[in-house]
Amino acid sequence: MSSGPFLAVDWGTTNLRAWRLEEAGTVLQRAEFPLGVSQLAPGEAAARFESEVRPALGAQDLPALLCGMIGSTLGWANAPYLECPVSLAKLAGNLLEVAPGVRIVPGLTCAGLVGPDLMRGEETQVLGWQAADPARLHGRHLLCHPGTHAKWVRIEEGHVTRFVTAMTGELYDLLGSHSVLKFNPPPSDEDFDPEAFDRGAAAAGDGGALASRLFGLRGLTVSGQLPPAAAPSWLSGLLIGAEIASVWPAVASADEKVAHVVGTARLCDRYARVLTARGVGCEIADGETAVIAGLTRIWAAAP
Amino acid sequence: MSSGPFLAVDWGTTNLRAWRLEEAGTVLQRAEFPLGVSQLAPGEAAARFESEVRPALGAQDLPALLCGMIGSTLGWANAPYLECPVSLAKLAGNLLEVAPGVRIVPGLTCAGLVGPDLMRGEETQVLGWQAADPARLHGRHLLCHPGTHAKWVRIEEGHVTRFVTAMTGELYDLLGSHSVLKFNPPPSDEDFDPEAFDRGAAAAGDGGALASRLFGLRGLTVSGQLPPAAAPSWLSGLLIGAEIASVWPAVASADEKVAHVVGTARLCDRYARVLTARGVGCEIADGETAVIAGLTRIWAAAP
Repeated sequence: MSSGPFLAVDWGTTNLRAWRLEEAGTVLQRAEFPLGVSQLAPGEAAARFESEVRPALGAQDLPALLCGMIGSTLGWANAPYLECPVSLAKLAGNLLEVAPGVRIVPGLTCAGLVGPDLMRGEETQVLGWQAADPARLHGRHLLCHPGTHAKWVRIEEGHVTRFVTAMTGELYDLLGSHSVLKFNPPPSDEDFDPEAFDRGAAAAGDGGALASRLFGLRGLTVSGQLPPAAAPSWLSGLLIGAEIASVWPAVASADEKVAHVVGTARLCDRYARVLTARGVGCEIADGETAVIAGLTRIWAAAP
Repeated sequence: MSSGPFLAVDWGTTNLRAWRLEEAGTVLQRAEFPLGVSQLAPGEAAARFESEVRPALGAQDLPALLCGMIGSTLGWANAPYLECPVSLAKLAGNLLEVAPGVRIVPGLTCAGLVGPDLMRGEETQVLGWQAADPARLHGRHLLCHPGTHAKWVRIEEGHVTRFVTAMTGELYDLLGSHSVLKFNPPPSDEDFDPEAFDRGAAAAGDGGALASRLFGLRGLTVSGQLPPAAAPSWLSGLLIGAEIASVWPAVASADEKVAHVVGTARLCDRYARVLTARGVGCEIADGETAVIAGLTRIWAAAP
């Protein structure tokens, strides 16, 4: 069992969040960096961690526990994926030490709709989500992690038994930045238009024919049936609606009544709109709280 | 009826092809320019047409007929969309004159899966495809135009009665250039891997859950089940397979036995692989031949 204060890091594709923690998970200091794995030159993760992340948190000498894409071939070093089902003990027992006192949480893999599916970072949030309520360590639960690569995760008796990814957030960014549907000007968070979002979600239908339904946005704006300023919200609704319509049959039981959505409030609220419209109960949990609690649990359980 | 030689132009989103034609459609000179509508600054279409396109074809004084995205709000001027069903006579009777002797073919619109669907350029290829065989002026036919925004077009008694768009080519370019599935290095046409393409097409299933199936490519390459060099062909197969599986039920009759695929040989051959595997007959026609023949028919029929 590890003990004492440590540096907890969620190092993802697009950014890095770090917390200096007391052993019990209390946050003493927090920092965020626009230093995602996709911005790292090959081989520089270690140097930038030492020269930028540690000093910003006053954590030069603390042991560190990292999760996320930093454990991939694109990151610091490859922490091999663990095959589902995976428990806390299995994760904590397979940390990869990349430098003295610096360890990385492995990712998960399971059979997906097409070949193996992959996860890095959300497994830690799952463990943190469980920490908030002992009832979550038992029974069956369905979690959704909205984001660049949204994950739908089946939990059974505390284990991650399977999951399905959808590239929803990445498609939104690609289409809004580089395609014929490009947003002009780029939207800000304050521009969210719930009515346009709901129209987009309804336009997703059963989630099929996505490449055709996407082009529908061009027809709606060119014909004046949707104001250009509402296009980002409509596209978000279409993509999230298509994700939920497509993935739900693949991960949910016939009697599934509740989905737990773990992430930022802005995105969780959007998923909740679509789930509620489908008659599914939705419980929202904060993603940052979950990742801190998850790293704390893994830290405490690690050999 | 217009007569005499003219300058025929297919001015699309990414490039411009122009032909100096005899009245009967014989090509006297051809030129191609990387001057798509997306590369035009606002308001400069007329000037660049006069200073670059006309001189390159020795066509300073010829009348001109243009089709494609140049007739959109992003192009020279907006030639309003005609509502389906649309015949040759309706198209030829609604040309937009943007300068003395320079006319643009209007686009088409019809009710789509989501709002109005839109077409600019393919309507001209449809007319040219018909010119190759008088039997095509009668009965029901199904045409597919592969490309950035692929179109599936229903023809009845010579009229375009409806169509469905899929952003297949654009998704391929976006994902291969900017996403986690980015090709490295970029593929050349010679790298086509038919076996990987067929695996991708099979992975499309019923065309649903596209945002999840796409992420499958990452799992296949990370796990070593697909060599990175085969990723572009696999992705092409997945997207074309999903397009055909999704759009076919929306446009084809239960007894549809043949699809006519009109475009470049490289893309038509890929569509033919998927259609043939589905038990659909496939007849391929050259897209450039079709657009020249279509502009010639419209020219001859124009008031």
